[in-house]
Amino acid sequence: MDTFTPPKGMRDFYPEEYRAREALFSAWRATAAAFGFEMYDACVIESLELLERKAGEEISEQIYAFEDKSHNRLALRPELTPSLARMIIARQGGLTFPLKWSAVAQCFRYERMQRGRKREHYQWNLDIVGEESVMAEAEVIGAAVTALRRLGLSAQDFQVRVGSRALLSALLAQSGIAPEHYAACYLALDKRGKISDADVAALLRSEGLAEQAVQSVFTLIALTSIDQVAAHIADVHNPAATAALADLQTLFAHAEALGFLEFLSFDLAVIRGLGYYTGIVFEAFDTAGKFRAIFGGGRYDSLLSALGGQKMPCVGLGFGDVVVMELLADSNHAPQTSRQLDLAVGYMEAAAAPLALQIVAKMRAGGQSVDLALRPERAKKFFDRANKACATQAIYLGPDEVAKGEFTLKAMSGGTTRTATLDSL
Amino acid sequence: MDTFTPPKGMRDFYPEEYRAREALFSAWRATAAAFGFEMYDACVIESLELLERKAGEEISEQIYAFEDKSHNRLALRPELTPSLARMIIARQGGLTFPLKWSAVAQCFRYERMQRGRKREHYQWNLDIVGEESVMAEAEVIGAAVTALRRLGLSAQDFQVRVGSRALLSALLAQSGIAPEHYAACYLALDKRGKISDADVAALLRSEGLAEQAVQSVFTLIALTSIDQVAAHIADVHNPAATAALADLQTLFAHAEALGFLEFLSFDLAVIRGLGYYTGIVFEAFDTAGKFRAIFGGGRYDSLLSALGGQKMPCVGLGFGDVVVMELLADSNHAPQTSRQLDLAVGYMEAAAAPLALQIVAKMRAGGQSVDLALRPERAKKFFDRANKACATQAIYLGPDEVAKGEFTLKAMSGGTTRTATLDSL
Repeated sequence: MDTFTPPKGMRDFYPEEYRAREALFSAWRATAAAFGFEMYDACVIESLELLERKAGEEISEQIYAFEDKSHNRLALRPELTPSLARMIIARQGGLTFPLKWSAVAQCFRYERMQRGRKREHYQWNLDIVGEESVMAEAEVIGAAVTALRRLGLSAQDFQVRVGSRALLSALLAQSGIAPEHYAACYLALDKRGKISDADVAALLRSEGLAEQAVQSVFTLIALTSIDQVAAHIADVHNPAATAALADLQTLFAHAEALGFLEFLSFDLAVIRGLGYYTGIVFEAFDTAGKFRAIFGGGRYDSLLSALGGQKMPCVGLGFGDVVVMELLADSNHAPQTSRQLDLAVGYMEAAAAPLALQIVAKMRAGGQSVDLALRPERAKKFFDRANKACATQAIYLGPDEVAKGEFTLKAMSGGTTRTATLDSL
Repeated sequence: MDTFTPPKGMRDFYPEEYRAREALFSAWRATAAAFGFEMYDACVIESLELLERKAGEEISEQIYAFEDKSHNRLALRPELTPSLARMIIARQGGLTFPLKWSAVAQCFRYERMQRGRKREHYQWNLDIVGEESVMAEAEVIGAAVTALRRLGLSAQDFQVRVGSRALLSALLAQSGIAPEHYAACYLALDKRGKISDADVAALLRSEGLAEQAVQSVFTLIALTSIDQVAAHIADVHNPAATAALADLQTLFAHAEALGFLEFLSFDLAVIRGLGYYTGIVFEAFDTAGKFRAIFGGGRYDSLLSALGGQKMPCVGLGFGDVVVMELLADSNHAPQTSRQLDLAVGYMEAAAAPLALQIVAKMRAGGQSVDLALRPERAKKFFDRANKACATQAIYLGPDEVAKGEFTLKAMSGGTTRTATLDSL
């Protein structure tokens, strides 16, 4: 072997990197617990059939698929939602709904390598299954915002853009735009502000929209607040749009009561790539616009029935580890990753080992994290090592200490000392 | 799809199963921290070349291997040690040795399904790299024993059998047995007490051992204590055996000082299947002999150099999640897996949502785990749900509570109540 790097696009986690990852995972798990979500997990290997049934075509091409020695068609999951749906359906008669489940799952996508894109990432998942009310969206988005706040970020650092597939469909229908032109309209909405209006219009015409339809799209593009949408539909009979708008209004009211309204903004252009969202959709971005989406999700009320289960309303969110770590580093909020060690114990001669081991056993039993020197060493070398390991306290046993059974407990920062014996520890 | 089970041999972790798994992982991680190990991780996908170089042939057949779309030969790791070795070698010049690293890693082996054997498991790994002294073995075994004690098991439940490949080789050499017969001798040692002496002798003869060699093997088989080995080599010049025996004696002395001597027993028959162990080897079994090994490991001083790194002494241990969970269940020490929830909040009418959300936000910010009802419900249904979710306390908001802004905090066990407002919470 020439190199000892991990496979392309995969990551090793040396202890320092592991501690940073763990700081993120801890924020995720603690927030899930605070919001009353239960943790679950599924195997990183799934049946290819399940993934293909759920996934759009683009994702299928990115799946790591293989056959095992019994010719079962297996794959490394690109996301956790199909496994969640499978688990729910398997026990749909026995579980109590609505349920709130959370997971931190490694997911794989085969991508051509570019600009630091990885082929695996860890993704925090939050899903609420069996609830129609928009309180589900409020809890899921509220949890994701809370986790980012826990990591030190504020509304100056990121914003959650909230749209609604149901609202957008109802508005497009109201405008008389034919469904075969919806994809072009989504693209035009996405390009708003990024390219000139003339270019947006040209794009729509090239997709075959008539002049009146192009003007209708510009009317929709101009709707940049919930109030503007409300005014737009005030005088027409569009019950689907009215209901979808009411959900958005309720969501923003819930966000205010839960204390995260400042993080939300309405954006009709939020679509989400995946085909299976049916209602409110959302995506969080850094305010500076430097990175890809931090998290995203929405309501997907048709997935369980599409996979063969009973129809059941669902809201879900996926939150990857890569972008948030880039944003935390960029905004000087990278997690502190120094090692945690309560005590280091060293000794000058092998004869000290029994006393050292007894000290160590007692302190560990008391709940302390203790590193024991594995061999005799000089005091200077020991204290250098203890310092490097970020030990809070240190004990070094020379021949005198062993003979008397009395030794010094030294605070590594500040250097205060106290004398102790095995019994007095 | 006909069924919604996971792929054959793989496991889902529903919340109750996740909590049980997490209880085990917590014991592992807390013990690793207590013993001063640093956590690390590598990707579950490794290059097939690395695994093949490390693995014996039997394991190679059990590897889940596949090609990605760039024809890279990849595999799901069957164990973590090759990845550890790769990571160490990649930074061998920059890391500080000895180092103590730990991981909890999912590993995969394709096995014909039988008696509940699985194709994936989680394995706790402890490795000390860069240390020759037997203190390394003492710390690794001590940590594994401590984790099992933390889970509620005692020396009545399990024992760690300790042997030494170095000692056994030296004794076989002393006996004049040719190296090509070592495998047969290992087998005979393993069968000791399980089949009759006559059958052991027949087995050895069928493998081509001369009568004198068969008698030598029986002499070794009769050595069931460290003292007997010491007597056996007392009058001969066998420096390799003397050194190996001294290591074992030191290990047992360290175990006594660390407080786990009662868990150790000497057993020359412990070999470990893998070819790469070079010194002390050990395996833990339940005392009733019902299950496969709980954990196992040993010294492997030649692996890094075999893979292309600098030679460096290593001691490692692997501890799977499946057998220990079987043993814990069998000995009535299965982890408690009830859900943990500090507070449940429910309400009769949608108009209560703002107050409910504010209560919930405040309690979560105070560190509590809080479940909020996602829709209005009758009091009885709410309290039934709160009870089922194991909530410690509950708040139910009717119209009066919303009007007054005053509500009751009820202890779910015992039923004591106290009145509170949003401000007084």
